[in-house]
Amino acid sequence: MTLLKNPVFQQFRKNGALTAEEEKRLLGLEQKPRRVDASDPLWHENDTVDAFCILKQGWAYSFRNLDSGAKQILKLYLPGDIIGMRDFGFSHRLAGVEMIDEGVVCPFSHQQLFEVMDYSATLASGIVAIAVRQQAMLTERLVYVGRHTAQQRLAHFLYELYLRLSRIEAVKDNTFSLPLSQEQVGDALGLSSVHVSRTFSMLRDEGLVLRDRQRIQLPDPMALASMAEFSDAYLDESMPSPFLDLHGISSRALRDAQKA
Amino acid sequence: MTLLKNPVFQQFRKNGALTAEEEKRLLGLEQKPRRVDASDPLWHENDTVDAFCILKQGWAYSFRNLDSGAKQILKLYLPGDIIGMRDFGFSHRLAGVEMIDEGVVCPFSHQQLFEVMDYSATLASGIVAIAVRQQAMLTERLVYVGRHTAQQRLAHFLYELYLRLSRIEAVKDNTFSLPLSQEQVGDALGLSSVHVSRTFSMLRDEGLVLRDRQRIQLPDPMALASMAEFSDAYLDESMPSPFLDLHGISSRALRDAQKA
Repeated sequence: MTLLKNPVFQQFRKNGALTAEEEKRLLGLEQKPRRVDASDPLWHENDTVDAFCILKQGWAYSFRNLDSGAKQILKLYLPGDIIGMRDFGFSHRLAGVEMIDEGVVCPFSHQQLFEVMDYSATLASGIVAIAVRQQAMLTERLVYVGRHTAQQRLAHFLYELYLRLSRIEAVKDNTFSLPLSQEQVGDALGLSSVHVSRTFSMLRDEGLVLRDRQRIQLPDPMALASMAEFSDAYLDESMPSPFLDLHGISSRALRDAQKA
Repeated sequence: MTLLKNPVFQQFRKNGALTAEEEKRLLGLEQKPRRVDASDPLWHENDTVDAFCILKQGWAYSFRNLDSGAKQILKLYLPGDIIGMRDFGFSHRLAGVEMIDEGVVCPFSHQQLFEVMDYSATLASGIVAIAVRQQAMLTERLVYVGRHTAQQRLAHFLYELYLRLSRIEAVKDNTFSLPLSQEQVGDALGLSSVHVSRTFSMLRDEGLVLRDRQRIQLPDPMALASMAEFSDAYLDESMPSPFLDLHGISSRALRDAQKA
């Protein structure tokens, strides 16, 4: 999975809003792939910020260690995501990031990111839109966790993943792989592991979620969404029209396209 | 207050990282100042995203309406802030925004924002850094509210404001103006108005916070920060060094600077 397959850049491509040179520059961020094992830390809270990553394979999460010794899981990263944009403009990491399962990451430097953003308004806007969307998901979950039942929280969490995974073609027959342990799901939702297990059973009894080890099946995704009072505005994949016609502004990109 | 006085661009300027032309382009976003009254909505949740704003005077906040009829206040905007970056890349507003007291806002379009971001990597990076910092504050508060006492929450909230206001020179003798009602403070912290009032009294009894109508005085800011277990990493105003030397990349900006 490459950054070009990220739902934001997919939208650009569908609308013919990326030139060949812009695609090449995005792919230029993925030149140093590195294998990582399950549970490998990418960095720790308070580390110096020296790189960002594209997640090519596998899942990762950002987290805070709580005083109680527990973790608060903040964001879940899926293949095609950029990791670390949250630290943009800060000297030190605001959260740690760890791999969930094994995978491949491509680190890139501030300098590389600046060059891509500087090349055209389209690339800069796409990268900002990805960062904002990640934050929107986090905000949604934090607001949400504060005021819903355990069952709605888990339903919301699973339906959101279902939508995100659908967009990167990782859902088949309403079934997807969930590499998180019960404890990790709990750390994302503010629930104990036992509570997560009990809540999965309730969703199963209502015919909404079937789980077999790491396989999750949603027999009726719309029913699950409705139970979770899910609003997908914050996951809306369509970019507003000004984004899809940036070439008038992007003089350098335009010049290159005309030369080609 | 202008966007140039925002702590992020102040950092750039202190380090000589903004050219005259870059400053001019930033100021170009502020050409249509508009007076707004206290409680005026700037937009509503679900409205079409058609503009962003620089807040020149006054305070504003973004919020969600809860099913209960209450509000959840998300971000507080102070003079010099950009409002609406959270909606960047979305077609519809994810949250409403209202003025708190009266003030002045300068709306600008997607097109204007793209042109500024396209002009140089410095401007693009500064704008992204401002957006990321706003989100970092929101994340911090939401994570925080979940696991601290009412007294710590209020202490945290007030100390954060004290720091933000200090940076825009709106604190004098450890005293600043807080135009929010008790109810609004409660909507930001997930507390009832009565609970906020009681918590202010507790902080007063401990000699940490004096309140006289809308004036707040912090006799010993460090003691307040310590009580709130405040970590200011997420408010860190110093930009990492790669940000302060972007001109090598910003070919257009550099060209203009050399011409000048």
